[in-house]
Amino acid sequence: MINVAIMGHGVVGSGVAEILINHPKRIADKVKDEVNVKYILDLRDFDNLPYSHKFIKDFNVILNDPDIQIVVEVMGGCTFAYDYVKACLLAGKSVCTSNKELVAVKGAELIKIANDKNVNFLFEASVGGGIPVLRPMVQCLTANEITEITGILNGTTNYILTKMINDNQSFSEALANAQALGYAEKDPTADVEGFDACRKICILASLGFGKHVYPEQVATKGITDVTLEDVEYASRLGYVIKLIGKARKLDNGNVTASVSPTLVSRSNMLSGVSDVFNAIMIRGDEVGDVMFYGRGAGKFPTASAVVGDVIDCAKHLKARKYLFWEDPSEPFVTDSSKDITKLYVRVKTNNTKALCEKLVEIFGNISYIKNDAENEVVFLTENDIEQVLLCKLEALHGIESIRTLHVID
Amino acid sequence: MINVAIMGHGVVGSGVAEILINHPKRIADKVKDEVNVKYILDLRDFDNLPYSHKFIKDFNVILNDPDIQIVVEVMGGCTFAYDYVKACLLAGKSVCTSNKELVAVKGAELIKIANDKNVNFLFEASVGGGIPVLRPMVQCLTANEITEITGILNGTTNYILTKMINDNQSFSEALANAQALGYAEKDPTADVEGFDACRKICILASLGFGKHVYPEQVATKGITDVTLEDVEYASRLGYVIKLIGKARKLDNGNVTASVSPTLVSRSNMLSGVSDVFNAIMIRGDEVGDVMFYGRGAGKFPTASAVVGDVIDCAKHLKARKYLFWEDPSEPFVTDSSKDITKLYVRVKTNNTKALCEKLVEIFGNISYIKNDAENEVVFLTENDIEQVLLCKLEALHGIESIRTLHVID
Repeated sequence: MINVAIMGHGVVGSGVAEILINHPKRIADKVKDEVNVKYILDLRDFDNLPYSHKFIKDFNVILNDPDIQIVVEVMGGCTFAYDYVKACLLAGKSVCTSNKELVAVKGAELIKIANDKNVNFLFEASVGGGIPVLRPMVQCLTANEITEITGILNGTTNYILTKMINDNQSFSEALANAQALGYAEKDPTADVEGFDACRKICILASLGFGKHVYPEQVATKGITDVTLEDVEYASRLGYVIKLIGKARKLDNGNVTASVSPTLVSRSNMLSGVSDVFNAIMIRGDEVGDVMFYGRGAGKFPTASAVVGDVIDCAKHLKARKYLFWEDPSEPFVTDSSKDITKLYVRVKTNNTKALCEKLVEIFGNISYIKNDAENEVVFLTENDIEQVLLCKLEALHGIESIRTLHVID
Repeated sequence: MINVAIMGHGVVGSGVAEILINHPKRIADKVKDEVNVKYILDLRDFDNLPYSHKFIKDFNVILNDPDIQIVVEVMGGCTFAYDYVKACLLAGKSVCTSNKELVAVKGAELIKIANDKNVNFLFEASVGGGIPVLRPMVQCLTANEITEITGILNGTTNYILTKMINDNQSFSEALANAQALGYAEKDPTADVEGFDACRKICILASLGFGKHVYPEQVATKGITDVTLEDVEYASRLGYVIKLIGKARKLDNGNVTASVSPTLVSRSNMLSGVSDVFNAIMIRGDEVGDVMFYGRGAGKFPTASAVVGDVIDCAKHLKARKYLFWEDPSEPFVTDSSKDITKLYVRVKTNNTKALCEKLVEIFGNISYIKNDAENEVVFLTENDIEQVLLCKLEALHGIESIRTLHVID
């Protein structure tokens, strides 16, 4: 029998408990041994659950119980989660977590401890909820050099943008709807400002490129200032606006990483990813682009990924070491504005005609949307270094305001 | 050092050889040991290759060399491939193959031999080329009961249908184009008649449901009689026509499996899969739908999946047993016409008015397209058992010809 402790009985934690407790045969068939949930750590009381006798409030009970071989951390946040997970790994217990903040901020350190102690630190659920993506990237694509990772990594913002695109709702209307449906939290900051997507692209980039990319190294921009006018212009140009997390390996071995609202061509599979769904596109030098798609959040989708890790752990209690990256000893992340991109440019001007003439002078024979009613000109640049494009835009005359967004074809 | 033999130096085999020989450091870093291609078996001569000294013509050299621990089978077909693979497994050598026919026809037997001999039999490349799908299904989704698998499994037919849909080319024009581009073979039977997709849905269903589903148990229909009129009607109804392989678990534990041209709703992610791309949608009871997308064929995409298997094998020379199914002891596959589906129905009639009246009488208040110029009526049924729907259609009067296709929303 393998004993498991679950730390946290929120949305994901209760899902993990229910799957493990309600499907003992399914789990045992896979593990070839019984998996027993011995403790559930939560400060709240859950007296009416059939498994309420398993609840404890003191972390030390888990830490000091030599029977506990696997600890599931689904508390979220970095403070307690970090202390507890570190203590468990140091005590020789394997840890499975869905906590993207913990992995994005402390991943390299915790992976090193797990390897030193010869136990597992698994976190498939931290990116894309129930979508298999981390294991497939390192196992199935292992013959490839990963060169680029592009993803719709946050369901809340994708739901909001879908409502703006399909139902013409404003950002604030769509956000209110998402909150009413439980897709967005009361304080939606982490989602709409892109912080959640930032943590996920950190994890993907760290794993794909082998060295830790930290959240503060990722240029992160949320969707709060995306307007229905942007959505409409994008549509006229053949694009939809998505919050895209992107990481790319440069020729010198460094990487860039960013999160930003981005125009995605309708011919790109990512453009079809709607509502709360997530998708991650991974480019390998041999395989080209492969995409993984599914529910990026939710109780049972995310819990099923955590339980997948628990089963893997239970089958291989000694460290398998396939989820691995290290702290970079030298600067590893390059400012993403030094990378090549295409830009969507929307200019308010007091003279659309003069601006369009200047545009052709600077950028050559490009097409643009001239909206005289709104005194606006909208166009897409060619691919170039972002800083170079921004310099060229400074040469435009008669600009009242200018707005740029990334574009992927 | 781990010694590998490659059997077959065709498209995929040469890709495997090139990746293994050209990227020794990348492979060694993953395996923590050197991987050496010792022999390549092919009856043809390849005198001008930098590795031409590795070629042999006698299989027994591989079989009788105790240094060879891993054999890559990329010959295709079932005759020699089966004899050679079986002999290798019996001799205690692990085998990695991209040969879908071999796995679909002989999988259960070969898996059993591999397990008995405690060696690996891996075949990630047999479905979806370079797309990671078999390992993710059994490893990452392991906490789920798989209930349904739906896929666009053949790049050639998807390319042909894409040309019919987007460029209004007839089936034969599109086929000729596919042949000119090397996407279709001179004899395109295996692709356009659905046999290739049939083998792949057999492998997916066998792995997902745990018992061998054989090709002859799968109702298989190709795309040769799909017309531009069908494509046009589908479009008016909000659908695109794709060749879909589908397998479903029934409530009694049995499964159904089919391959057929199918109307796919534009709101379904599979509808956006164009050209030679493949995608596999897997439904789990906890995770819902997840989809895997990418290049389903081609030299390096497929070879990269084979090399991924070789690396996995080299890291774990003893059987890992995670790709597993057995021969069913009792009947396991139910005729797919006993399963629930929605149908596209296209009727030629000598009296469209009378037919539409009868239609409403039988099916209730459904909408239809009445094309008087062509004496045709087209409609979609509700979901019901296919045999029941076909019985109801028999009650329609004045039918000159009738055509039905499956529909998925």
